[in-house]
Amino acid sequence: MTDPLSTTLSALADPTRRAILARLAAGEATVNELAAPFDISLPAISRHLKVLEGAGLISRGREAQWRPCRLEAEPLKAVDTWLERYRTFWEGSFDKLEAYLNEITKGDGNGRQS
Amino acid sequence: MTDPLSTTLSALADPTRRAILARLAAGEATVNELAAPFDISLPAISRHLKVLEGAGLISRGREAQWRPCRLEAEPLKAVDTWLERYRTFWEGSFDKLEAYLNEITKGDGNGRQS
Repeated sequence: MTDPLSTTLSALADPTRRAILARLAAGEATVNELAAPFDISLPAISRHLKVLEGAGLISRGREAQWRPCRLEAEPLKAVDTWLERYRTFWEGSFDKLEAYLNEITKGDGNGRQS
Repeated sequence: MTDPLSTTLSALADPTRRAILARLAAGEATVNELAAPFDISLPAISRHLKVLEGAGLISRGREAQWRPCRLEAEPLKAVDTWLERYRTFWEGSFDKLEAYLNEITKGDGNGRQS
């Protein structure tokens, strides 16, 4: 059995599926609306939606004909939480850069008293 | 050709590979050190490391015998940047909850003047 975070990351590992989520971040949309910007078949879009729905990244309305898709952000929040411990790596680099810039700016101030 | 973000997310969609990254977040390690906590073969670990290396999530030393692995956080930063636009969804929910809690706390203060 696949763990939920792996299922989420696997569902996100596709540019079309990420584009679908980006569209849904702007509001609900039908399958036809979601398919419009892509040069792929409606069945292919449906397969992508099934993967996203399986990962809990989208939910779909109950209406038989017009089943709007909506973004469910909870699994993305889990990715964000997982990333937390690694954030120090690039934030740390920025701190070092800032310290360095402060250092050379200070040096500059002392040197040139114009 | 797979885009870099999809390659990263696909490499992360495995609990063993995420555990390897978590170990490397604490510092460099050899393949043997990385394999120790897992009940899987050394070749299986090597395959996981190849996937992580292919995604640029780890790099390996040049020494023939002792090739330490190290975490490369740059691809994770790209995931963090991609998540940015979705962060408003759960941060927004917290804001709404906070507003609601402020509201009922205020109501409480006006109601019971004990």
